[in-house]
Amino acid sequence: MSKKSKTPSKLSRVARSVPEMIAAKRDGGALEPAELEALIEGFVSGEVADYQMTAFAMAVFFRGMSPEETAALTLAMRDSGDVVDLSSVPGVKVDKHSTGGVGDKVSICLAPMVTACGVPVPMISGRGLGHTGGTLDKLEAIPGFKVETTTKRFVRQIEKIGCALIGQTADLAPADRRLYALRDVSATIESIPLITASILSKKLAEGIDALVLDVKVGDGAFMKTEKQARELAESLVRVGRHAGKKVSALLTRMDAPLGHAVGNAVESAEAFAVLAGGGPEDLRECTFALGAEMLRLAGVAKTEAAARKRLAKCIADGSAAKKMQEVVKAQGGDPRVVLEPDRLPSAPHAVIIPSPSSGYVKSIDAREIGLTAVHLGAGRTRADQEVDPAVGILLDKKPGDEVSQGERLARILVRNRAAARAVTGRILEAYTITQRRPKVQPLVIDTIRR
Amino acid sequence: MSKKSKTPSKLSRVARSVPEMIAAKRDGGALEPAELEALIEGFVSGEVADYQMTAFAMAVFFRGMSPEETAALTLAMRDSGDVVDLSSVPGVKVDKHSTGGVGDKVSICLAPMVTACGVPVPMISGRGLGHTGGTLDKLEAIPGFKVETTTKRFVRQIEKIGCALIGQTADLAPADRRLYALRDVSATIESIPLITASILSKKLAEGIDALVLDVKVGDGAFMKTEKQARELAESLVRVGRHAGKKVSALLTRMDAPLGHAVGNAVESAEAFAVLAGGGPEDLRECTFALGAEMLRLAGVAKTEAAARKRLAKCIADGSAAKKMQEVVKAQGGDPRVVLEPDRLPSAPHAVIIPSPSSGYVKSIDAREIGLTAVHLGAGRTRADQEVDPAVGILLDKKPGDEVSQGERLARILVRNRAAARAVTGRILEAYTITQRRPKVQPLVIDTIRR
Repeated sequence: MSKKSKTPSKLSRVARSVPEMIAAKRDGGALEPAELEALIEGFVSGEVADYQMTAFAMAVFFRGMSPEETAALTLAMRDSGDVVDLSSVPGVKVDKHSTGGVGDKVSICLAPMVTACGVPVPMISGRGLGHTGGTLDKLEAIPGFKVETTTKRFVRQIEKIGCALIGQTADLAPADRRLYALRDVSATIESIPLITASILSKKLAEGIDALVLDVKVGDGAFMKTEKQARELAESLVRVGRHAGKKVSALLTRMDAPLGHAVGNAVESAEAFAVLAGGGPEDLRECTFALGAEMLRLAGVAKTEAAARKRLAKCIADGSAAKKMQEVVKAQGGDPRVVLEPDRLPSAPHAVIIPSPSSGYVKSIDAREIGLTAVHLGAGRTRADQEVDPAVGILLDKKPGDEVSQGERLARILVRNRAAARAVTGRILEAYTITQRRPKVQPLVIDTIRR
Repeated sequence: MSKKSKTPSKLSRVARSVPEMIAAKRDGGALEPAELEALIEGFVSGEVADYQMTAFAMAVFFRGMSPEETAALTLAMRDSGDVVDLSSVPGVKVDKHSTGGVGDKVSICLAPMVTACGVPVPMISGRGLGHTGGTLDKLEAIPGFKVETTTKRFVRQIEKIGCALIGQTADLAPADRRLYALRDVSATIESIPLITASILSKKLAEGIDALVLDVKVGDGAFMKTEKQARELAESLVRVGRHAGKKVSALLTRMDAPLGHAVGNAVESAEAFAVLAGGGPEDLRECTFALGAEMLRLAGVAKTEAAARKRLAKCIADGSAAKKMQEVVKAQGGDPRVVLEPDRLPSAPHAVIIPSPSSGYVKSIDAREIGLTAVHLGAGRTRADQEVDPAVGILLDKKPGDEVSQGERLARILVRNRAAARAVTGRILEAYTITQRRPKVQPLVIDTIRR
């Protein structure tokens, strides 16, 4: 027999047919790892139809999956494409993944900070989704910066400078990309095992050794309650460890946007401010908390305090900013933007919204701010739209801040003033101003390591 | 504006998007009639993807539908194609629908009997499905008989002779045909509201005024328990009445096959035996019970006793057999088969299975007998297969019958003896023979009219 003879499909080697597997899940049963592998292989090859996968996804929505099933699904999806081999890079390779929020530009300062501390960070990020922004869109505000690359060039960049900030290549976890697109239009997104498999299949394909997850909680996040977020965090940690990786998850608050800036260029600029030793307090705290956990998992710091000290040092000595310059240069961008963020594209108008009353900012509805930014052109309402790097919103006052009537509450960055007039009311409504000084909750709610 | 301008799609006129409607059902909410109409219209036009419909069907499987939703879905599916206008035919047009069993050839004798009593019967039947046979396959065993026709010829035949026995035309309820094909391979068949909409959308498109449903209960039926069958019967009656039709449902037992014959030609022959005044007792009872209810709904008999008397008369005076001859002739077949069933195709071999012991037949596993007949070639395992009209099984002994060791228990009608040898063990296993005379339950369990 020729060695080139076609391998029989995995579906032909399991006892149950696709409808029988869907029925088993529907009726509360469990699928074997070999069955989940066959299902995913068949989905990618076309043997399993899209209309069978969505029925299966809906059955999973109602019936859930055991940890063993979730792990098997995750690994099957990881193995649907290339798995990057980073064994040529010494050290523990660590990445961070956020479940998505508004104003979350953490990756852009975190990755170079952690790399500057001696830990390689092979980071693959996403685009904006719904009301949340995307790291790739923010990075593309940097003139010349390219997020698309090949696996080979990705590996070479990690070998050379220890850090890369790229988009998902077509070869990584294609089953996830196809399944996510179907789930998005069939009301089957909100399932802990399916979210777990989607996030981890991509991350496990990156060639990492360790992963820190930022599971956002609150009105501006996909997980509205701490209970849901904790359940997802535990599922992610459990399945990640099952796959042989070191994994922690931080639950962080996402009620108000993170930092002052919401948009693309303005968010990159704010991340660069952190690298330069400044930046808003909540953004710094989120970055340091996640970075400390990454250093801990990588084994370069024993305690959180030691890790935070090391992160502060790489900012103070300029090595974090320098690392970001190397990344920007390696990916075709103008490295001067890191220390001179004025070189980023900017909108011609910054229309000021004065505060309608005196008092304290109690809350800012992150979801509304995110949707307003999308409406201004900073995000997409259809996958084929281009984003405008220059437009956005600057939230001058944040929860806990005191404000006087007429004082600057926020600014709208626009190409023309009419666009700002259209959304002023919406931004004002996102703010809640009270007379009593509100208690601002700590950003990090909990860290899940087990 | 031109009158020919395209009507905007119903989807564009409802507030919620398709994913939002799926999510609403998933989360236990109800859809508006206009939303269900938009969903079905969009499904037929291609605006709603197959993978959205199966996710929706799975959500319905878990969440069910209110009577109002089920009715709206049924009417939307009915209106996805032509609705036959039989107003040119005087009288109350009545049809019968069975949920499917083994040996169920009732339609073939019932339709001409009811028509002979003065009630028009516009009957649209189906093909074999799984372990159950199909009326169309049985009718096609009649040399020359055509079940495919156009709506126009169907109406003309009802006008002329009051009865037609045809297959579903492409123009009737296309949404049901497409949705059923998807449900079949996505584990979403077993849902009372979806079954209700599937059955009734087709029947309501026929132009009937009244409908009697034969909901089969037992191991040989799709509904295994009386509870499930009752739930389906009540849903069918409720939705049918909501659509302005007179509807009753009989719950009838389907543990053992109906009659002695399982196959195609042999089943037609057995139905003709009923028209000639003979036939097995259970088949006669099922036919008379359903026929009496049809006459009652049509208003030509006040009581069940009067209706049964009238049905007996149309057999005794030969008018039922004569009506079937007219139907066969109108549809291109040889009308002599009705009184001379030897003219039907027959298999060259009738291999006898002797009883392995003496005693009483306690039960016959209808599902196993049905699957064995399919295996012999009387049914299909793939939609594109042809059935063999001549092969089948004759169950000489039925539940309640006494049998001596070595006496003829059953016969296998085959093209070659090897085929019979392969299934003999299977048929023997379907029989349970006991020493004590078993109690045979009445065929009709209940009639649901409210």
